[in-house]
Amino acid sequence: MKALVYLGPNKKALEDRPIPTINMPTDAVVRVEKATVCGTDIHIIKGDVSSCQPGRILGHEGTGIIDKIGSAVRFFKPGDRVLISCISACGKCAYCRQKIYSHCVTGGWMLGNKVDGTQADFVRTPYADTSLHHIPKGMDEDALVLLSDILPTGFECGVLDGKIKSGDSVAIVGAGPIGLAALLSVQRYSPKKIFVIDIDNNRLEMAKRFGATTTINNNEVNAHEKIMQLTHNSGVDTAIETLGITVSTKLCNHIIAPRGVIVNIGASRAKVDLLLEESWNRQVTVTASLVDTFSTSMLLEILRSKKASHQRLITHYFKLDSILEAYDAFTNAINTRALKVIIET
Amino acid sequence: MKALVYLGPNKKALEDRPIPTINMPTDAVVRVEKATVCGTDIHIIKGDVSSCQPGRILGHEGTGIIDKIGSAVRFFKPGDRVLISCISACGKCAYCRQKIYSHCVTGGWMLGNKVDGTQADFVRTPYADTSLHHIPKGMDEDALVLLSDILPTGFECGVLDGKIKSGDSVAIVGAGPIGLAALLSVQRYSPKKIFVIDIDNNRLEMAKRFGATTTINNNEVNAHEKIMQLTHNSGVDTAIETLGITVSTKLCNHIIAPRGVIVNIGASRAKVDLLLEESWNRQVTVTASLVDTFSTSMLLEILRSKKASHQRLITHYFKLDSILEAYDAFTNAINTRALKVIIET
Amino acid sequence: MKALVYLGPNKKALEDRPIPTINMPTDAVVRVEKATVCGTDIHIIKGDVSSCQPGRILGHEGTGIIDKIGSAVRFFKPGDRVLISCISACGKCAYCRQKIYSHCVTGGWMLGNKVDGTQADFVRTPYADTSLHHIPKGMDEDALVLLSDILPTGFECGVLDGKIKSGDSVAIVGAGPIGLAALLSVQRYSPKKIFVIDIDNNRLEMAKRFGATTTINNNEVNAHEKIMQLTHNSGVDTAIETLGITVSTKLCNHIIAPRGVIVNIGASRAKVDLLLEESWNRQVTVTASLVDTFSTSMLLEILRSKKASHQRLITHYFKLDSILEAYDAFTNAINTRALKVIIET
Amino acid sequence: MKALVYLGPNKKALEDRPIPTINMPTDAVVRVEKATVCGTDIHIIKGDVSSCQPGRILGHEGTGIIDKIGSAVRFFKPGDRVLISCISACGKCAYCRQKIYSHCVTGGWMLGNKVDGTQADFVRTPYADTSLHHIPKGMDEDALVLLSDILPTGFECGVLDGKIKSGDSVAIVGAGPIGLAALLSVQRYSPKKIFVIDIDNNRLEMAKRFGATTTINNNEVNAHEKIMQLTHNSGVDTAIETLGITVSTKLCNHIIAPRGVIVNIGASRAKVDLLLEESWNRQVTVTASLVDTFSTSMLLEILRSKKASHQRLITHYFKLDSILEAYDAFTNAINTRALKVIIET
Repeated sequence: MKALVYLGPNKKALEDRPIPTINMPTDAVVRVEKATVCGTDIHIIKGDVSSCQPGRILGHEGTGIIDKIGSAVRFFKPGDRVLISCISACGKCAYCRQKIYSHCVTGGWMLGNKVDGTQADFVRTPYADTSLHHIPKGMDEDALVLLSDILPTGFECGVLDGKIKSGDSVAIVGAGPIGLAALLSVQRYSPKKIFVIDIDNNRLEMAKRFGATTTINNNEVNAHEKIMQLTHNSGVDTAIETLGITVSTKLCNHIIAPRGVIVNIGASRAKVDLLLEESWNRQVTVTASLVDTFSTSMLLEILRSKKASHQRLITHYFKLDSILEAYDAFTNAINTRALKVIIET
Repeated sequence: MKALVYLGPNKKALEDRPIPTINMPTDAVVRVEKATVCGTDIHIIKGDVSSCQPGRILGHEGTGIIDKIGSAVRFFKPGDRVLISCISACGKCAYCRQKIYSHCVTGGWMLGNKVDGTQADFVRTPYADTSLHHIPKGMDEDALVLLSDILPTGFECGVLDGKIKSGDSVAIVGAGPIGLAALLSVQRYSPKKIFVIDIDNNRLEMAKRFGATTTINNNEVNAHEKIMQLTHNSGVDTAIETLGITVSTKLCNHIIAPRGVIVNIGASRAKVDLLLEESWNRQVTVTASLVDTFSTSMLLEILRSKKASHQRLITHYFKLDSILEAYDAFTNAINTRALKVIIET
Repeated sequence: MKALVYLGPNKKALEDRPIPTINMPTDAVVRVEKATVCGTDIHIIKGDVSSCQPGRILGHEGTGIIDKIGSAVRFFKPGDRVLISCISACGKCAYCRQKIYSHCVTGGWMLGNKVDGTQADFVRTPYADTSLHHIPKGMDEDALVLLSDILPTGFECGVLDGKIKSGDSVAIVGAGPIGLAALLSVQRYSPKKIFVIDIDNNRLEMAKRFGATTTINNNEVNAHEKIMQLTHNSGVDTAIETLGITVSTKLCNHIIAPRGVIVNIGASRAKVDLLLEESWNRQVTVTASLVDTFSTSMLLEILRSKKASHQRLITHYFKLDSILEAYDAFTNAINTRALKVIIET
Repeated sequence: MKALVYLGPNKKALEDRPIPTINMPTDAVVRVEKATVCGTDIHIIKGDVSSCQPGRILGHEGTGIIDKIGSAVRFFKPGDRVLISCISACGKCAYCRQKIYSHCVTGGWMLGNKVDGTQADFVRTPYADTSLHHIPKGMDEDALVLLSDILPTGFECGVLDGKIKSGDSVAIVGAGPIGLAALLSVQRYSPKKIFVIDIDNNRLEMAKRFGATTTINNNEVNAHEKIMQLTHNSGVDTAIETLGITVSTKLCNHIIAPRGVIVNIGASRAKVDLLLEESWNRQVTVTASLVDTFSTSMLLEILRSKKASHQRLITHYFKLDSILEAYDAFTNAINTRALKVIIET
């Protein structure tokens, strides 16, 4: 089969690989229908993610059809259409029983990291029963693939960790895919004001269309001053930081309201100094979260009930054969205006 | 009257001052019976607290007897024995209505900071109805004075912000007064293990007597390794950092369990870099809190019901005339073994 | 001035009354601009509410302009446009400090109950600082009057007590004003499915337009069976009961999901037996709530930000002179299709 | 092997039965060391529990040693000492993933109800990996058997559902085993006052020794009046009802504080009318809960750390051969003063 393989820092290739087989009775092998590329894949290729070794097939997002199941798999059978979670969870260990699936003792973020991933014709998925989700008949939205990672991340790490409530003021720093996914997610809990800050006017236009009440180009105006002015000097109840760079971390510290929450998502591998000395008297809470994907089935139900429209996060389509072009488009987003790209097998 | 006055960096004196009078209809004037000295007073005297200007009478903790009340005071009358909260709250502004009293628009931490404080024979207390507490008849524990600040801080910023639950593992870094107050507070919610870390064996002995299950001298053993070993490599659910220095902040980052909470209390004026790059994958929550004193009346009821014994935090007694000696004893705690000192008028 | 007065069971009249004056320094007198009629007023007139004695001017909802203030009022001055909360709260007592304003020791539901109310040209409002809300310049929506009671009730007692979360299934039993207000409120937290059950097809049509995903006429189909079928036998996460009659209470017990919440709002004066013996094994939570109106300022901000459209709950307009006709229209809703009626002075 | 078998209403016998075998790959067979008798067993024998059919071996509590495991069991092996949870949970279904194990689609309360139970020499335990708990080496407290059901019930349904917080006032109605287990549990969260109400002075004496601050014999004094007086007319924050009879349900309705919680535990099979018409204006929350046993491993850790002493709930010991005498002692508790009885094989 074809597979996109990480070959060491700044090297990747589309290679021929054998179709994976069942290793453990709890495994499934899935024929991939759609996959996508994540910012984390770019980090891996840069060599930033030490847990992912050269030779690894990348990709932790995707949908497909069950090809084979291990003897202990109870809820799935060959032919079932499934959504693949980016987190593999045994469902039994102490962390899984607390729904901290990302810390599953024998699982967690495995696909495209510690085991081969979804940017291939087939993928072996560990702990199938507790890591795959049935796709209801009749659903074939491309947006399904966003449920593997980016939408649960926006919801769990943005909305829930950010304790967003009806009537809140929220700032989202960074209007890339993860920022826009957060933007869609936070609207589920009806904040009063949503500020989106970026330096790319194209992305800010998209943010406006996606529901931002105010967009701010931090190169053109002082975002700190602007937000304090528009909140009557109260600041925002929740700041969602998606860039992981000092300037944006500082901004969050400056605009957060008393008893507010700063959540750091999607860029957590970078070094980030939190400025407690500037924010301690705001009684601030700061979180740094991995997605646990406990919300995936709920988000799937919502997508199914047409109560959410996430399709618009998808901007480009590629065949697996052209996945290198997909990486180019995704990496060069400032020119291509790419958000999420679909890889079809 | 006599009063301890801040005179600029590293200068203080016991001075004669006029007895304060009612300024606003919501004020009371209280004849102070007991006061105490807080680590924050030491910060002020060092010149670290810019909101407190030279000439200010210090002290934000105390008990006393109402001498005069303003025309709008409804719940208190001259002769009532009262506990003085370190936070003055109007009870009406948007922050007060959310119980974020420390951010009261016209109040907050006023006493011994923006208005004259309790280390004097008399003190004017703003917003008496919502900032004083009746002392029930028959209560005269010296420990009452701990309810002005240190015990609500331990409870609100330690236990509640730290989300301590029955069965948790907790680490307290620093066994000074605030660390020991936190130690007493966290036991209200029955953690399974309480590690206390310090470099002073005297204080660690006290911590042991106060309920620590394990004490660790970080100069003698590696606290990080020790705690990871004793938690079977899980780390602690809550780390309470009371020192505000890099080594202790780092320790908290290293020992925190997935989905754990690091709370920073009692040393928040120092510069503190949080090490997100070392803890992001623990899904950590970090808080930096001021006390709001919303728990004071509950803690007073508990003290009254003999369900708590906080008397042992008090180590020394001084008359107001000798308050300079009290400061000496408190500042030189490593030799005097002082925790909280009582100043009697 | 003109005022609608309760004269004993089933008797009411529009009478001439003296303009009220300031009684307490914390009072304001408000010239009423708009008021409305609540189902509770109908209960009073039936003689069901023993706390409300004959001779009382009715009405606990309204907007107006401050005419006079007591000497202790700090946040309002004559000429200010204000929203009047149905709950008068001293802001200082133990209940108020826990935001349980409906149990304020010297306040609570006073207006149109224990003191004269808003269905008059003027009204005296106790505890003005903590019971009135400034209406921002430029806002003159009639929907403001809904913020006195019905919208906070829908939000606090429906959404918050009902613990409604994104993706939930919700049933609302009764499509009268309070049911429809709850319907608008619950959408702020993005449930997946909202069932509205009534026996009046007109009201169900309105429910559909207001956002119900499924409406059920319980006279035509078996609501219990229908809901269990549409939830794949899971039941609903939250059931909002607004009628207070046995048939609807039973329905809630039958359709509630494991760990679900049944909230009883808006009809709480009726006798209601909860059927624990039928629902205990669902691990159900049942709440019966009064509104505390702690959410009013947040809801006002939302209305102001155009993030909510509640105008459509208003169906009829009357002058105070014609208030008896307003009562007729409201009481005879099945024919008049009245929801909320505006009384203008 | 020997087994206590339910033979239809009011009939039970100690019979010879074949040793159970592995049915499903997720099963284990456990050689029982200790079991106990629960009030629910008495309900079954009375014929009150329709899910439990004649011929069933009773018992849902116990400890033992793994004898055999199915092929899919991963965390246990023959020879392991284990605690058996009263709830069998697949760990994979939608309810299990929300920790509502009592509603596991293919599990829940199975043992001694839908499958044969623990009052026997051996028991087959479904879903071993997610329904058994390792007993750490060196632990052999008889109190371990209390962790199968009664202690998690007290903690989850009493403390957690009852939202007990430091400083609360709590009433426990009924001083039988479940009431006393709740009494031990609630002390983990440091309430200020704990009232225990019963009509048996022996049990009330035990309650006093177990930590009740006030005991009330409701035959001798009016519990309602007494509690209102001792709470300065505020009522209790949490009322734990363990009897399921009208008089105790009414009492809870009468003594509950505004925004308080009434939890119904341990007697939920009886008909219980909740008196909303008497308590609606208290904004009361009522819960009826089954134990999910998600807290078992935490409670096991606490028992192990010697931070709890539950041994005193055990009053009698019997050999399995004499289990009929154990039932007699347990049923006739008013004379035998039995609380929990240990059955040893």
